Amino acid sequence: MFQETIKRIRPVAPEFTEKARERLDNLTKPQGSLGRLEEFAERLVAITEDTLPVLDKKIIFTFAGDHGVAEEGVSAYPSEVTRQMVFNFLNGGAGINILACHAGAKVVVVDIGVKSEIAGAFINEQVGKGNFLSKKIIFGTKNMRHGPAMSKNEAVKCIQAGIDLAYEYAGQGYKIFATGEMGIGNTTPSSAIAAVLTGRPVSEVTGKGTGIEDETLKIKIGVIADSIRVNKPDPSDPIDVLSKIGGAEIGGIAGLIMGAAARRLPVVVDGFISTAGALIAYCLAPDTKDYMFSAHNSAERGHKAMLEKIGLQPILDLHLRLGEGTGAALAMLMIEAGLKIYREMATFEEAAVSGKSG
Amino acid sequence: MFQETIKRIRPVAPEFTEKARERLDNLTKPQGSLGRLEEFAERLVAITEDTLPVLDKKIIFTFAGDHGVAEEGVSAYPSEVTRQMVFNFLNGGAGINILACHAGAKVVVVDIGVKSEIAGAFINEQVGKGNFLSKKIIFGTKNMRHGPAMSKNEAVKCIQAGIDLAYEYAGQGYKIFATGEMGIGNTTPSSAIAAVLTGRPVSEVTGKGTGIEDETLKIKIGVIADSIRVNKPDPSDPIDVLSKIGGAEIGGIAGLIMGAAARRLPVVVDGFISTAGALIAYCLAPDTKDYMFSAHNSAERGHKAMLEKIGLQPILDLHLRLGEGTGAALAMLMIEAGLKIYREMATFEEAAVSGKSG
Repeated sequence: MFQETIKRIRPVAPEFTEKARERLDNLTKPQGSLGRLEEFAERLVAITEDTLPVLDKKIIFTFAGDHGVAEEGVSAYPSEVTRQMVFNFLNGGAGINILACHAGAKVVVVDIGVKSEIAGAFINEQVGKGNFLSKKIIFGTKNMRHGPAMSKNEAVKCIQAGIDLAYEYAGQGYKIFATGEMGIGNTTPSSAIAAVLTGRPVSEVTGKGTGIEDETLKIKIGVIADSIRVNKPDPSDPIDVLSKIGGAEIGGIAGLIMGAAARRLPVVVDGFISTAGALIAYCLAPDTKDYMFSAHNSAERGHKAMLEKIGLQPILDLHLRLGEGTGAALAMLMIEAGLKIYREMATFEEAAVSGKSG
Repeated sequence: MFQETIKRIRPVAPEFTEKARERLDNLTKPQGSLGRLEEFAERLVAITEDTLPVLDKKIIFTFAGDHGVAEEGVSAYPSEVTRQMVFNFLNGGAGINILACHAGAKVVVVDIGVKSEIAGAFINEQVGKGNFLSKKIIFGTKNMRHGPAMSKNEAVKCIQAGIDLAYEYAGQGYKIFATGEMGIGNTTPSSAIAAVLTGRPVSEVTGKGTGIEDETLKIKIGVIADSIRVNKPDPSDPIDVLSKIGGAEIGGIAGLIMGAAARRLPVVVDGFISTAGALIAYCLAPDTKDYMFSAHNSAERGHKAMLEKIGLQPILDLHLRLGEGTGAALAMLMIEAGLKIYREMATFEEAAVSGKSG
């Protein structure tokens, strides 16, 4: 199934971009004057191979997972916050709930690797039903400073879980996906992945995450360097990288993106951690890039290096560094704006407006 | 009335920014991790002096005016397009209609200086009633290459029309305003204003507008230089600048911003031409700056110089160069997102989420 999905991922067809361009150039505005909104519309047409696509059903997947490496003191928050935040998501009080609602998108919280049991506790509390999915592959990663974060088999299962979600929700008629995550400590594996897959020094791609002090940042950089030295991840083998120095939610995000691309659906990639997942997907299947929208320029150091490697230009730059899918929710509003322009504006002829002189 | 409005404009109170900051820091997210969304919320609280502001009624004013200088061949489109586009706005087919609807904002098209009669024609066609206002001060400006675009008295009347609109719609309960414009040729006076009020050379603040060729750009720069030489606008007298090398819609925008500031309401400034209006308002009453949100970084050369002069950081950068208020509509969605975060997110205590360790 995993290999089959990769085989299904094809680059988008330029003839659809051209068809979209033709319509855009007849709308009552100077050609190209709606800038990136026009680019979004073109890309949606090319992705869906539909000259009048719709984005009526939008969904954000917030993958939750814990990280053994958190015990090294790399985060400003204790590990139990991952689980607490899952309940905050299900109660509707987190940033992603507010912004997804603002964007008219559904949020599904996916437990793919939280270290404690969530499903049982969730069922007891009877909250947020339908917004929670258990796709648990692991109970948190192992501390990657001392060995692989997870096995290769577990890493593949995480990706497969993401692919399954994409297929399942594509089948339910969702038209655009977005990625998000929650996992105390997860900027640490994301920076490790960035370093290995972009070839940049660890210090250049490691930032302050949720807001650690300078002293802790030094420790974090050391922990990442140790993890790479101990595990020797193979940069030419994305599964090896994901299993040794990654995380369950990063694998889930990679899989969701691959599944979206295989089903010819657009997927909005949130910030730093999501882009680490996107980079794994890109290295496994480079054509996934055609289906990705980079939501925003994260305040987290190292994000830009990954975006450059994939070749993505972020949509927003609002200095966000929360994750969860918050930037993706906002970017969905801009992508949708592009599509509405394309679908709804009058042409010069319809509006009896004169074209360019001379 | 004009001088009274200026007297009413005060800087925002820092104690309200602090109150907003206190709440923001207790929400379930690392402090500051929602970046500029938090800034928007802080600013809205300070502007309205309300610790729980609402933005339920939003309105975009698209001021339309013609420019005598268009006869110099500075635009890619013929002058009659201004009037044709007004009808396109009233029929709902223009970019601003689509994007304002996306943002949940009303659009009012204001004829402040179109060269032909609009009101009569409009009434006959019975379209878009309630979305059109006649505040006609002039029937187009005069060609500024040969003398003042309008009289000082007309310039003041244009500003006053904008102030009146702000007061009128504040009275109707609108909570946030945005500026927009339509006027073939209006990047030419806007660049002239930018040059005079920022002190930069004309060539540095003059761009291709709706998409003119390199040859036409040279002509445009020459026309602007001539207009400044002929009229000798006084950089210390914004009314002198507006009347000699400005336009009716630019004056209306300046007035709307001043009225918003006097009524303590936020106002979203669209792109290049709107920022020329904002710069006039800023030079007349520098505290207006506290009430302005810069919607986006326009693709038009010269925009940045004006934003720097006022001290504004644009919200979006989507390479837009359409005007009408399109960028402002999109930016409203981001400002509203900031307010929703502030109003609706759970606090650490409410959600039983642990705070920062150590």
